[in-house]
Amino acid sequence: MVGGGQLARMTHEAGIPLGIKFKLLSNAPQESAAQVVSEVVIGDHRDLDTLRAFARGCDVITFDHEHVPTEHLRALEADGIPVRPGPDALVHAQDKGVMRAKLDAIGAPCPRHRIVADPADVECFADEIGGFPVVLKTVRGGYDGKGVWVVRSSKEAAEPFRAGVPVLAEEKVPFVRELAANVVRSPHGQAVAYPVVESVQVDGVCDTVIAPAPDLSEELSGQAQELALRIAHELGVVGHLAVELFETADGRILVNELAMRPHNSGHWTQDGAITSQFANHLRAVLDLPLGDPRPRARWTVMANVLGGDYPDMYSAYLHCMARDPQLKIHMYGKDVKPGRKVGHVNTYGDDLADVRERAAHAAGYLRGTITE
Amino acid sequence: MVGGGQLARMTHEAGIPLGIKFKLLSNAPQESAAQVVSEVVIGDHRDLDTLRAFARGCDVITFDHEHVPTEHLRALEADGIPVRPGPDALVHAQDKGVMRAKLDAIGAPCPRHRIVADPADVECFADEIGGFPVVLKTVRGGYDGKGVWVVRSSKEAAEPFRAGVPVLAEEKVPFVRELAANVVRSPHGQAVAYPVVESVQVDGVCDTVIAPAPDLSEELSGQAQELALRIAHELGVVGHLAVELFETADGRILVNELAMRPHNSGHWTQDGAITSQFANHLRAVLDLPLGDPRPRARWTVMANVLGGDYPDMYSAYLHCMARDPQLKIHMYGKDVKPGRKVGHVNTYGDDLADVRERAAHAAGYLRGTITE
Repeated sequence: MVGGGQLARMTHEAGIPLGIKFKLLSNAPQESAAQVVSEVVIGDHRDLDTLRAFARGCDVITFDHEHVPTEHLRALEADGIPVRPGPDALVHAQDKGVMRAKLDAIGAPCPRHRIVADPADVECFADEIGGFPVVLKTVRGGYDGKGVWVVRSSKEAAEPFRAGVPVLAEEKVPFVRELAANVVRSPHGQAVAYPVVESVQVDGVCDTVIAPAPDLSEELSGQAQELALRIAHELGVVGHLAVELFETADGRILVNELAMRPHNSGHWTQDGAITSQFANHLRAVLDLPLGDPRPRARWTVMANVLGGDYPDMYSAYLHCMARDPQLKIHMYGKDVKPGRKVGHVNTYGDDLADVRERAAHAAGYLRGTITE
Repeated sequence: MVGGGQLARMTHEAGIPLGIKFKLLSNAPQESAAQVVSEVVIGDHRDLDTLRAFARGCDVITFDHEHVPTEHLRALEADGIPVRPGPDALVHAQDKGVMRAKLDAIGAPCPRHRIVADPADVECFADEIGGFPVVLKTVRGGYDGKGVWVVRSSKEAAEPFRAGVPVLAEEKVPFVRELAANVVRSPHGQAVAYPVVESVQVDGVCDTVIAPAPDLSEELSGQAQELALRIAHELGVVGHLAVELFETADGRILVNELAMRPHNSGHWTQDGAITSQFANHLRAVLDLPLGDPRPRARWTVMANVLGGDYPDMYSAYLHCMARDPQLKIHMYGKDVKPGRKVGHVNTYGDDLADVRERAAHAAGYLRGTITE
């Protein structure tokens, strides 16, 4: 796996019972996954020679992020190394312009959008869609709210163009909530769909995920799962695909983002589903039969643990374990920095209010925003 | 953790979400746990200098087997390294003579027994208990049926004495089945008890574990849990304690063996309990609050996967995953040798017959004794 973050850490964890020999390419030995994996190569995923040396002897290469240059993926494929997801699929998660064009072509519902050239062009786009605000995104390199701007006039639209990367303009969808439809697909086309979840964002960062999404109609849930399966098929995705969605007041769903790897909206599956997203991602990229994606509990809630003002979380960690012996804590081994994702917690049970309260309390207590 | 077997492998797996930095002392780099742990020291656990160098910088030392000499554990403690379970507790799992003497002293029910000096003494013991057969055990070094003999006359009793190790004679209990009561205890005395399970042995090796033990009366289940908690307390155990029990036809329970580490009879907890034995063992030895030991399913069944005649299990592995998408496979990364434990499977659900059939089929198919 290329990338030493928490997704690789948790994928290795899921690979241990499957008997999978896991090799990691990490930028630094102190990265989250590098702390727990036996076979680690330290190197830069943007360097083709490093990638080639790393890939030698691997049955398959997969990723914990989208930042390997597409042309390097093609070079690895030309060397005969199976790359999953492959570059033709992964480019849709790397480049938002390519993603929107493809989704349009297959008729997947999206916010209105087009590539814009400069602030004046943003003004034109605003006119086309009935006025500001407009969402601007660099087509490559953004994540967790970075590389995204909401602008209310062309005067505010200068910054996104500074990087010299193409900029995508999108309507700001007046959504009622965000959903995620997670699916996993194998090279031979077997696919499974997890229950559709609600993703609660705070400041552009995922805060809480509720599985399944409360009060979601069976019809819309089915539509979202079918849409995600269709995207996975049409784009030739192998592995886990997260389709982030907007749910609108008039009962439509629109595709917001795609991620082709285990995803924050699927962390609940570690404790809440029969087979976790990490295990199924590995099973898919290794072309093993997929595991059952169904939930094990009526409700499962995931809450991200962000770093707070105090670097030492140990006493909070003790408190949370003692307060709730059913709490499932997942720490990433990262140094605490304010706002940095350093872990998550999962809770499950029959009573949604209770399950949410327990997750929110633990995440807040670990961050230091709750002190009792 | 000292010892590179599958118990260490699965303990590391459980430590990843807890954010625990796991260091391993393993005999060889290809051992089960050494394949998946980042920080591995290769060395001999019988050598004190090796143990001392390994222990430097560790917050606590624990074990995946009972084979570290008791005097070395005392030396580590004298160096100021917390050893959990400590030598005063662990000696009861290392030496069956010490164990029986202590259990007698605390009034724990045991098969009739005494240390015997030679085959003539075995004859005397047989007379005391009403005749042969007699079970003979070397007080140290036995496991999985090794170091245990069932003899029907003093003539058959020569072999156990050959090793020059003290020999314990026990009555052969006419049990109706074997149970295991698993508990976990912290340094400050917090303890949790898992549901009592039935352990089905074949040729002296654990074959299947059923959680909870079917048709076990609430009274006997409570007695077994209380007995295990009392033994953990009286012996000062820290970490996981497995108390292997005989259930007799007249409704009594007798202690067969003790293990002070995660144990085969607790593997079902990985997929069947809120907190696994591995996570709770780590939480105990690190003096963290313990996790909830309650079951997540009505029935969970664990079946050991033994090596069969064919070293390549890959196609069987594919078949089992495809046949039962709910199957939880746990492979140990070991080379297949006939009769060697190379993994286990867990199944769970509401219908015990179905859950047992699925586990037995998968284990049999992986071994090669079932081919359809």
